[in-house]
Amino acid sequence: MKLAELTWPEVEALSREIVVLIPTGSCEQHGPHLPVFTDSILATAVAEGAEARIPDRVLMTPTLWLGASGHHLAFAGTLSASMDTYMGALTSVISSLQRHGFRKFFIINGHGGNNEPNGVALRQIKEQLPALMIGHSGYYGPVAEETADVLEGPFKEIRHACEAEASLMMHIRPDLVRKDKLRDDGLAPEPAVYGMIHLFDEMTEEGSLGYATLGMPAKGKAIFDAAVAALVKQLTALHEGYVLRGF
Amino acid sequence: MKLAELTWPEVEALSREIVVLIPTGSCEQHGPHLPVFTDSILATAVAEGAEARIPDRVLMTPTLWLGASGHHLAFAGTLSASMDTYMGALTSVISSLQRHGFRKFFIINGHGGNNEPNGVALRQIKEQLPALMIGHSGYYGPVAEETADVLEGPFKEIRHACEAEASLMMHIRPDLVRKDKLRDDGLAPEPAVYGMIHLFDEMTEEGSLGYATLGMPAKGKAIFDAAVAALVKQLTALHEGYVLRGF
Amino acid sequence: MKLAELTWPEVEALSREIVVLIPTGSCEQHGPHLPVFTDSILATAVAEGAEARIPDRVLMTPTLWLGASGHHLAFAGTLSASMDTYMGALTSVISSLQRHGFRKFFIINGHGGNNEPNGVALRQIKEQLPALMIGHSGYYGPVAEETADVLEGPFKEIRHACEAEASLMMHIRPDLVRKDKLRDDGLAPEPAVYGMIHLFDEMTEEGSLGYATLGMPAKGKAIFDAAVAALVKQLTALHEGYVLRGF
Amino acid sequence: MKLAELTWPEVEALSREIVVLIPTGSCEQHGPHLPVFTDSILATAVAEGAEARIPDRVLMTPTLWLGASGHHLAFAGTLSASMDTYMGALTSVISSLQRHGFRKFFIINGHGGNNEPNGVALRQIKEQLPALMIGHSGYYGPVAEETADVLEGPFKEIRHACEAEASLMMHIRPDLVRKDKLRDDGLAPEPAVYGMIHLFDEMTEEGSLGYATLGMPAKGKAIFDAAVAALVKQLTALHEGYVLRGF
Amino acid sequence: MKLAELTWPEVEALSREIVVLIPTGSCEQHGPHLPVFTDSILATAVAEGAEARIPDRVLMTPTLWLGASGHHLAFAGTLSASMDTYMGALTSVISSLQRHGFRKFFIINGHGGNNEPNGVALRQIKEQLPALMIGHSGYYGPVAEETADVLEGPFKEIRHACEAEASLMMHIRPDLVRKDKLRDDGLAPEPAVYGMIHLFDEMTEEGSLGYATLGMPAKGKAIFDAAVAALVKQLTALHEGYVLRGF
Amino acid sequence: MKLAELTWPEVEALSREIVVLIPTGSCEQHGPHLPVFTDSILATAVAEGAEARIPDRVLMTPTLWLGASGHHLAFAGTLSASMDTYMGALTSVISSLQRHGFRKFFIINGHGGNNEPNGVALRQIKEQLPALMIGHSGYYGPVAEETADVLEGPFKEIRHACEAEASLMMHIRPDLVRKDKLRDDGLAPEPAVYGMIHLFDEMTEEGSLGYATLGMPAKGKAIFDAAVAALVKQLTALHEGYVLRGF
Repeated sequence: MKLAELTWPEVEALSREIVVLIPTGSCEQHGPHLPVFTDSILATAVAEGAEARIPDRVLMTPTLWLGASGHHLAFAGTLSASMDTYMGALTSVISSLQRHGFRKFFIINGHGGNNEPNGVALRQIKEQLPALMIGHSGYYGPVAEETADVLEGPFKEIRHACEAEASLMMHIRPDLVRKDKLRDDGLAPEPAVYGMIHLFDEMTEEGSLGYATLGMPAKGKAIFDAAVAALVKQLTALHEGYVLRGF
Repeated sequence: MKLAELTWPEVEALSREIVVLIPTGSCEQHGPHLPVFTDSILATAVAEGAEARIPDRVLMTPTLWLGASGHHLAFAGTLSASMDTYMGALTSVISSLQRHGFRKFFIINGHGGNNEPNGVALRQIKEQLPALMIGHSGYYGPVAEETADVLEGPFKEIRHACEAEASLMMHIRPDLVRKDKLRDDGLAPEPAVYGMIHLFDEMTEEGSLGYATLGMPAKGKAIFDAAVAALVKQLTALHEGYVLRGF
Repeated sequence: MKLAELTWPEVEALSREIVVLIPTGSCEQHGPHLPVFTDSILATAVAEGAEARIPDRVLMTPTLWLGASGHHLAFAGTLSASMDTYMGALTSVISSLQRHGFRKFFIINGHGGNNEPNGVALRQIKEQLPALMIGHSGYYGPVAEETADVLEGPFKEIRHACEAEASLMMHIRPDLVRKDKLRDDGLAPEPAVYGMIHLFDEMTEEGSLGYATLGMPAKGKAIFDAAVAALVKQLTALHEGYVLRGF
Repeated sequence: MKLAELTWPEVEALSREIVVLIPTGSCEQHGPHLPVFTDSILATAVAEGAEARIPDRVLMTPTLWLGASGHHLAFAGTLSASMDTYMGALTSVISSLQRHGFRKFFIINGHGGNNEPNGVALRQIKEQLPALMIGHSGYYGPVAEETADVLEGPFKEIRHACEAEASLMMHIRPDLVRKDKLRDDGLAPEPAVYGMIHLFDEMTEEGSLGYATLGMPAKGKAIFDAAVAALVKQLTALHEGYVLRGF
Repeated sequence: MKLAELTWPEVEALSREIVVLIPTGSCEQHGPHLPVFTDSILATAVAEGAEARIPDRVLMTPTLWLGASGHHLAFAGTLSASMDTYMGALTSVISSLQRHGFRKFFIINGHGGNNEPNGVALRQIKEQLPALMIGHSGYYGPVAEETADVLEGPFKEIRHACEAEASLMMHIRPDLVRKDKLRDDGLAPEPAVYGMIHLFDEMTEEGSLGYATLGMPAKGKAIFDAAVAALVKQLTALHEGYVLRGF
Repeated sequence: MKLAELTWPEVEALSREIVVLIPTGSCEQHGPHLPVFTDSILATAVAEGAEARIPDRVLMTPTLWLGASGHHLAFAGTLSASMDTYMGALTSVISSLQRHGFRKFFIINGHGGNNEPNGVALRQIKEQLPALMIGHSGYYGPVAEETADVLEGPFKEIRHACEAEASLMMHIRPDLVRKDKLRDDGLAPEPAVYGMIHLFDEMTEEGSLGYATLGMPAKGKAIFDAAVAALVKQLTALHEGYVLRGF
């Protein structure tokens, strides 16, 4: 079910075993070849793909598209929520719906920069409301293997406006890909320093990180289908319920 | 221009005389006949209508759909941001884009409950960044007269899930109107008490306020066209610039 | 009753049907002819006028004189609370007294810039404590008609340090009006742009907005008497109780 | 000078060597014999006394009467600001006036419970704006000796609604003292435990702490005159300027 | 008992009459002769001294060493928490342990700058959780007399990196005292101005305040032993319980 | 260098190429066999190990031991900072030292629950102060391979109070290990659900997660030595400087 299209008595009538699915994205620079809404488009598409397959098990909310994108702000058109605002939005959605009796939540994320604030916000909610069952993941998280299989460039995982994201956009919204601007960027070998915090204008020349020139629709389709399948499996497991200790 | 579809170099290349247009809506109960996304759908439609007519003067952002809807939370499916989060989101969008040099902003609002926090947030921004030109209004604000002309019920202005909003939805998204559930509600005459703060479950039986049974697509079209025209005029005036003292 | 003058056992003994009346004002520039405390003086005077007529129905608190006046800060002597502090003060007063069992509150406001934060703060309180009955209004709100009748200049409503406020001060505190400095200011016709956020140093030359040179004590008395009468009526209605649905 | 009564051009014209004097008080229970506004009345009276003697050296603001009184909230009629709101109000006043070029501030406090938040708030301001000269004190602080001389009961310092405060109110506002309700309370000998945080409903029976039955106008006058004299001396020293290192 | 060394079942097994002892210190400049951790070292040493003598009555937590030291930030190596963070840490410790059923808390403080935020934070906690018994004091507070007896310089109380603190460090951690750098500083006579807020770079030349050249281990031992004895007495009284009214 | 032991002139004299090393830990339940300070003890030990080998390249601060441990609060003795307080402490340390000119920071973390708030806080700092070089990692992060080699139980990575942590404590602080209480817990196979947020009382019986009964000092030594070596390498790389683009 898509929450946006329901009336309140229809929501009221839903089973509380249904899993609330909340897509989180961003509106941030994705190099010269992908639109700023890329992460939101992809997270929404994966969520819609799963909702379409098991609509009775899922209550999908609109996408929280205003992400935590401070590391991209040097590039025009990037909109970034403050961390407090970003976490507040996610918290507001969950606390609204738990008031209506919903107990199962899953956040499907399209922007790596949201991972940490998602974790912080969800842990705070869980500590306040321990009865809720809450999970979160990048749509790309559970399909790391499938993604590595598909990618041809040296980077075998999703980076930013890279081979994988370009491929996904070629599959989902090919009209928005500037094919003549596809660009490899941020390719410098990693130094012998780990765990560093970086801004994208420190790491790249035009904002992307990876081998976007290798993007192909078929690669996008493979990753997308795997991501939808993984999410369907996750939502089904949550819907059917699971107990953690003693199962 | 629609920001979501642009790349960052395309945003970078825009004139800074362009007016950033930010739609604000809600995801809140609209009675048994309209979907919870009504306000967001309508604000977005008016904004897109204006953007389509003067695309070179407008940079339209995605809709801030998570509104300040605490007074509707008793009804299932309502999502409400805390006031801080709501104001933080609006502030984040403007402060991101002013960093990129944009100076003209207009917020087109579809949810009455956002008016006050919009005002508070924008005044705080203006005090910090006095060089910005910032305006805000409900899409229905400047067309009060046209709306009154069109409405047949006793209420001559937009209320909530009322004759006007039902008509607008019949014009914009007729597929989402539950025509068999149209309902008049919240019709009690006003008591001799003004300025009271109310929750919608105090004022109505099923959440709507007004004469939705009188909704008609043609009324919606009339209000919509007037709202788009008014917004185009406003954005054009802002784009061309105006000075306040001594003009 | 005036809270400030009572002892706690006297407060404890009051009926909880009594309406708590909270005046809100400002300490902000009012042009070269009116003192910075004008809004606080006027809101307090109207509140005292009502309390004097129906003391048993009203528990009047001291005036929250530190208003939300950021748009006046360019002028010396303006004191402005941050929005959080302003809203926090109003919230603190109400939450203190609701702990003592009071349930009915009315805020009588003397400063237009407080309207929006009053609304935001009161809505937050109402959402937390739905059993409270809370209203708010400018003292000038319910007497718009009487005010328009009295004013001779082109502006038919209260602006700032204008014909109306100058008249009111001539009636209430004539000793504080600099009659030799009365000044018309901010008179420029409105541009074809609505809903703009402005600072007073953008709109005026010396801080006032309207035709203060037309101020007269008799006009002030007429507006003041009407405002007191309207407030008495409002407080009486609240004291006697009213139900919203089904009355 | 009293800020409340000035116009902005008059404030603008003041010397920036003038000392801004900010009274802080409370609206909190003071036993069955003194009104809830006692602290605000006394701090204001001392401030006005000093301002009257050296008006050209002092710019007195209205009294911040909403104090940090959470420890009195068990008694009806007590209004308490949250700590954030209380500190925010003081910060807002100083930051407003420092924008207008004022550099010297003194807070004269009438409520012991404000001492710590005054200290915290002022230190934060000083760290942000090191060029400001800021001081604060209870009006009773520098006259501890004179107070001890005057008091006849076993407590030789100001407590709460005690011999000293009752005496001061008999001198300043005798009409507000309930002479038939004067009461000694909270007289238990101190246990062998220091530094404990207590609520007033833990320590007293009816809210006062000390020997109010010993209150006399002449004692109040002696303390008051000493407090005004001490404040005049302080403000004069600040006005004339002093350097800390190497003087 | 030292909390740090216990397992959770051991903590669970403790009597809830035990007093939680929380040392608060700082990491801030202490002149050229004492290390930046001086306050934390001393508060910890006093706490450990008391815990060693009555381990069954005390549950000592690790030291909150990140103090409120903004007034020392001009000197390199000073770490200062914001006031909110400082108070939040203390609040977090107490609210964690009260969840586990502990009701008696005492904060032993080694840094004067923590006194006010300790008071503000603890009052907020007490207002929220009135059943808790909470006290706080500098370790030097109850031994003012013993300290005055011991000190030979003109200052008869603890200042900063002074005769007393140098002596204490010579007793507790002589290896960390730079004996060749001992220095008298900040000795200027007080001006006729009281209650002023100062930064240490305004008051001193090299950061210390007092006669450190007079420091001697024996003086430190005398103060330290008295401080431990006083704390033991306090903790014992709290452990045995005391009632405030009617004891 | 250990900051705690330095005087401010000694800190002032340091090269600003030095890397500030900040250990972060926790005070939280670690099952019936390890003390609540385990994470802080281990992070501190690793940091001290690195500092001892390259003291001139490192300025080690005291350990931020109050971690984000809300998911352990059901177990007595766990102290948890609120997320705001936890992030505020880390921010305060860095912002204090950057004021003194230090530019290179590395956080060595001993508690998995701190990873996300560390990331959020450091990203906020980096966005405000882009010139800083900031990194963070668990001490166990870069030695995942060495750890897997050493562990004999089914879990090949650090969990909580597990084979690895028990071994490390047997190496570092054997006196604090309750060898008779070593326990395997939380061993249930993972369900087909990923990314779930859990409290430790949902996942375990007595708080530990993993095969602590397999703990051995030699395993601890191997992991510890590898962790120290990895950190030394990291700090050296940061000290020598590296450029991200074009190196």
